[in-house]
Amino acid sequence: MSYDSNNIFAKILRGEIPSHRVYEDDDAVAFMDVMPQANGHTLVIPKVPSRNILDADPATLARVIPVVQKVAIAAKEAFDADGVTVIQFNEPAAGQTVYHLHFHIIPRIEGVPLKPHSGTMEDQGVLAANAEKLRKALAG
Amino acid sequence: MSYDSNNIFAKILRGEIPSHRVYEDDDAVAFMDVMPQANGHTLVIPKVPSRNILDADPATLARVIPVVQKVAIAAKEAFDADGVTVIQFNEPAAGQTVYHLHFHIIPRIEGVPLKPHSGTMEDQGVLAANAEKLRKALAG
Repeated sequence: MSYDSNNIFAKILRGEIPSHRVYEDDDAVAFMDVMPQANGHTLVIPKVPSRNILDADPATLARVIPVVQKVAIAAKEAFDADGVTVIQFNEPAAGQTVYHLHFHIIPRIEGVPLKPHSGTMEDQGVLAANAEKLRKALAG
Repeated sequence: MSYDSNNIFAKILRGEIPSHRVYEDDDAVAFMDVMPQANGHTLVIPKVPSRNILDADPATLARVIPVVQKVAIAAKEAFDADGVTVIQFNEPAAGQTVYHLHFHIIPRIEGVPLKPHSGTMEDQGVLAANAEKLRKALAG
C-alpha cells in the first residue's frame, strides 16, 4: 500500500494537469471535483503525500481538517446549500479511486440524493463558475 | 442552529445513557454506532460541544481527527476490513440526525454495500463483542 507519485492529485499538486483550484495554503489545496456528486462538490487534499487516512501523518491531518471546515462553511454559503456531507474513502472497498488522501465536501440540498461517486464528468464551464462562487465565499 | 445539550451524544458523554465505549482521551470519545451501516461501525465525537463541523472550534477538530485516524486503523484490523469509509454529516439535508459533531468510521468489505444510515438497531451482544475486538486492536 505505498504511495504512487503519478496519481492524478499529485499531478494536480505539481501543476502538471489543470484543476479548478479554489484555495491553497502551506498545508492544503482545494479544487472542484470534476465528477461531482452534487453541485459544488469540492475536494481538499494535503500537500504532504499519503495514500489515505490510514498512512497519513497525524500532524498533517490536524492541519488539513481546519481547511476542510473552511471549505465546508464556504461551500454551504456559495451554493445556497441546506447541509454539507464530508466523506473520506480509504482503499478500493470503500470507494477510493485516487490514492492521495482527499476529503470530499459535498453541498446538500434538502431532498436531493447524491449522484454516484466517480459518475459523470461535469461541464468545464459549470466547474469554472462554481469555483468562482466558492472563491468569493472563501474570501468573504 | 444552536447546540442542544440534551442530544443523545451529550448524554452518552455525561454517562447518562449507556454506550459501548472503545476509546477515550482528553479530547474525544469513541463508541459503537447502535445502527451500524456495516459491522464494526464506530463513532468518534469531541468532548467539546458543537452542533457539527460548521460551528466547531478548528483547534478541537485538529485534536479529534488523529483519534478518527487511530480508530480507522484499528477498526480495519479488528474487523478484517478491506477499507474504511469516514463520513461526517452536517444538517438534516446531509443526513445528520444527532446534533453533536461526530465522525462515522465504517469498516468496508469488498463488494458489500453500506446499509442505510440510521437503519436497524444492532443486537447488544454483537455490539459488545465488536467493542471488545476494537478495544484490543486499539490497545495493540
